[in-house]
Amino acid sequence: MVSMDNADRELLARRFRVLGRHSPLFYEEPLHLVRGEGVWVWDADGRRYLDVYNNVPHVGHCHPRVVEAIARQAATLNTHTRYLHDNVVNYAERLTAKFDPSLSMAMFACTGSEANEVALRMARHHTGGQGIIVTDFAYHGNTEAVSELGTGFMPEAKTTHRVRSFPVPDSYNGLPGVAPAELADAYANAVKSAIDAFEADGIGFAGLLICPAFTNEGLVNVPDGFFARALAHVRAAGGLYIADEVQGGFGRTGRHWWSHQWHTEVPDIVTLGKPMGNGHPISAVVARADLVDEFGEWGMYFNTFGGNPVSCAAALAVLDVLEEERLPENAVSTGAYVAERLRQLQGKHSLIGEVRDRGLFFAVELVRDRASKTPATAEAARLVNDMRGQGVLISRIGRHDNVLKMRPPMPFNRENADQLLATLGDCLDRL
Amino acid sequence: MVSMDNADRELLARRFRVLGRHSPLFYEEPLHLVRGEGVWVWDADGRRYLDVYNNVPHVGHCHPRVVEAIARQAATLNTHTRYLHDNVVNYAERLTAKFDPSLSMAMFACTGSEANEVALRMARHHTGGQGIIVTDFAYHGNTEAVSELGTGFMPEAKTTHRVRSFPVPDSYNGLPGVAPAELADAYANAVKSAIDAFEADGIGFAGLLICPAFTNEGLVNVPDGFFARALAHVRAAGGLYIADEVQGGFGRTGRHWWSHQWHTEVPDIVTLGKPMGNGHPISAVVARADLVDEFGEWGMYFNTFGGNPVSCAAALAVLDVLEEERLPENAVSTGAYVAERLRQLQGKHSLIGEVRDRGLFFAVELVRDRASKTPATAEAARLVNDMRGQGVLISRIGRHDNVLKMRPPMPFNRENADQLLATLGDCLDRL
Repeated sequence: MVSMDNADRELLARRFRVLGRHSPLFYEEPLHLVRGEGVWVWDADGRRYLDVYNNVPHVGHCHPRVVEAIARQAATLNTHTRYLHDNVVNYAERLTAKFDPSLSMAMFACTGSEANEVALRMARHHTGGQGIIVTDFAYHGNTEAVSELGTGFMPEAKTTHRVRSFPVPDSYNGLPGVAPAELADAYANAVKSAIDAFEADGIGFAGLLICPAFTNEGLVNVPDGFFARALAHVRAAGGLYIADEVQGGFGRTGRHWWSHQWHTEVPDIVTLGKPMGNGHPISAVVARADLVDEFGEWGMYFNTFGGNPVSCAAALAVLDVLEEERLPENAVSTGAYVAERLRQLQGKHSLIGEVRDRGLFFAVELVRDRASKTPATAEAARLVNDMRGQGVLISRIGRHDNVLKMRPPMPFNRENADQLLATLGDCLDRL
Repeated sequence: MVSMDNADRELLARRFRVLGRHSPLFYEEPLHLVRGEGVWVWDADGRRYLDVYNNVPHVGHCHPRVVEAIARQAATLNTHTRYLHDNVVNYAERLTAKFDPSLSMAMFACTGSEANEVALRMARHHTGGQGIIVTDFAYHGNTEAVSELGTGFMPEAKTTHRVRSFPVPDSYNGLPGVAPAELADAYANAVKSAIDAFEADGIGFAGLLICPAFTNEGLVNVPDGFFARALAHVRAAGGLYIADEVQGGFGRTGRHWWSHQWHTEVPDIVTLGKPMGNGHPISAVVARADLVDEFGEWGMYFNTFGGNPVSCAAALAVLDVLEEERLPENAVSTGAYVAERLRQLQGKHSLIGEVRDRGLFFAVELVRDRASKTPATAEAARLVNDMRGQGVLISRIGRHDNVLKMRPPMPFNRENADQLLATLGDCLDRL
């Protein structure tokens, strides 16, 4: 167990006084970070940690290309999009070029929550319906309308009638009494039932909003055929498909730039955030041109900081680095290596129920018993804290907080992977 | 009339293709800016403009202290508040110290819209009521719940039942059939009527949300006594007073750091944005400790980019510059100088109905006739575009878009003021 020193205790006490006690912190004993570089961060005592958690510093902590782009543009001009500027146009062109041609326009904001706000306003206005369907363990952000989507735990979700959820389409845990071969239909039918319920309520249906990689839900493996069937119901009812790529985008999942591209269905609206500016606050909505035009005219949208020259300079540099350092390709190769090694660990440790991977995003579901799949929540908590003690930062997710969550900065290499796996193996051995 | 060259026309055409035609732009012919420094900006043809509009680059475009703070911290570490870091604690302490002691805690986000989202969620949860009162020409941001507050023009405001407005408390335009001495009571009674209507509707009352300087409403002069009487009604009904300082804060209004301090009533929640990071996307909610604690426990609030080390470094540098360069003091002295000269112009030009000022924020209401106060909307549009042609950037606001809006970066000095006034005088002469 790592213990906080007096200086950190005093900082924590001061923090409690000005930010309150409910501003969330990681770990049993909070970590005081002072420096970052690539896949590494250092605490105030000079201790180095391998960062296998933070996806926001997408191309690596403090990447010099991104830092230089921010510094240069901040010293030159920072205004807003009511003036013409090259950066926002150049970036919007490069960004939309990475999508299906039907997704040809972009709008800019500062956070994933703001991007999802735009998507919700856009979809509800376009369809005339209010009903949005999400999974029953979704999280898409912190504004009121977006909190409503957090049906598993956000307070606003408990009182709204305009959001309905369907069970996380999880081929590992499945549904009670449903045979594996029937799962895709069962989950798709749950989407259909939600659509019907909105119509019965007179609310109307606006669309399905999901993270196509189901990252918050534990990166579940979706039963084959679910996407096509669920989307067929959505389209038939006139609803839109909104893909939240805030966690799964920008090559994180390796084989594709966007996690929705693992499936053939093309979204109508895509929302982007966290990794986009490597930590600089920028987010976006990429959507069909007709939807952007229609919303722009009706919604009177302007975002003071959204798409400003500095934010776009940061985002352009992130694209440059991703392409020049071939980081999505690294996500494929290093990701496959990590996944293989995780499956070897699974062979040794019955605690590991399932290993799931997409590029450089890994979820390891811990169970007390492989038959009953009883969540090993306490074990997951201990592993996360033990690994922090061993200098490796990971986290956990899922309804029962029993799924190890690992999504390192994209330059994560084989040597880093070896350290992660060795530490995880040690911590599992000593559990 | 300034005319766009071919390069700018091509940039505009590209922008229309990727951002759509409804992403707002200033001026009849959009301005293509490439550089900024202090109170100056330059266009792509090297033409220099005196910036008397932009309040976001609060301590001046590209202030080297802010640029250096951003560059240094971006090169050192940029994470989030789930780890301990000095910057967010140092900044929260310095920020809250500038408020009444009852406003002792801060929460961080990225935009004014996000700050107002927190304020609304906090107030509605605390009071158990949904009803929010705003002016009938308010604008507080672009999310769904915050758009509802834009009762004058935002689409969501037309359908909600949980926002009611009262007439802008404007001692110049007044209310039909109400004597000037009765105005304060009349406006305060309109607030009381809105409270009663919420109770009658069974919605309950959550609070009054206003910009205490009524900046979007045209920086109106509020009838004496209005604040005390309106707030007495709000308090008696158990509602909260939420002050939106996104435009009026950080010394902009001169005599006080916050525009609510022009009145004795202390808000329960204050929201901050635009000038806070001199253009870097950071915003905050400063509120009573009990409200932050209660909301933090209930609302599960976390904002990935909010309060990150780089954003706080930018915001700390802004405080340093404001204090060391004594910019609020400059807002008082230069502001008074500009106001005096504007009133001299009013003596020469019957078009100027009223000159209103608070520190370095000026509103000049243009009327075709001083008795009828008919809005001189077309003249205001022509003046704004003519002044741009003469190298001075201003804008216009108000229900009839007939109020010249001037709020330059805070280092605006007497020489700048002389240029502004000479140009405005010329343009008025030639109107």
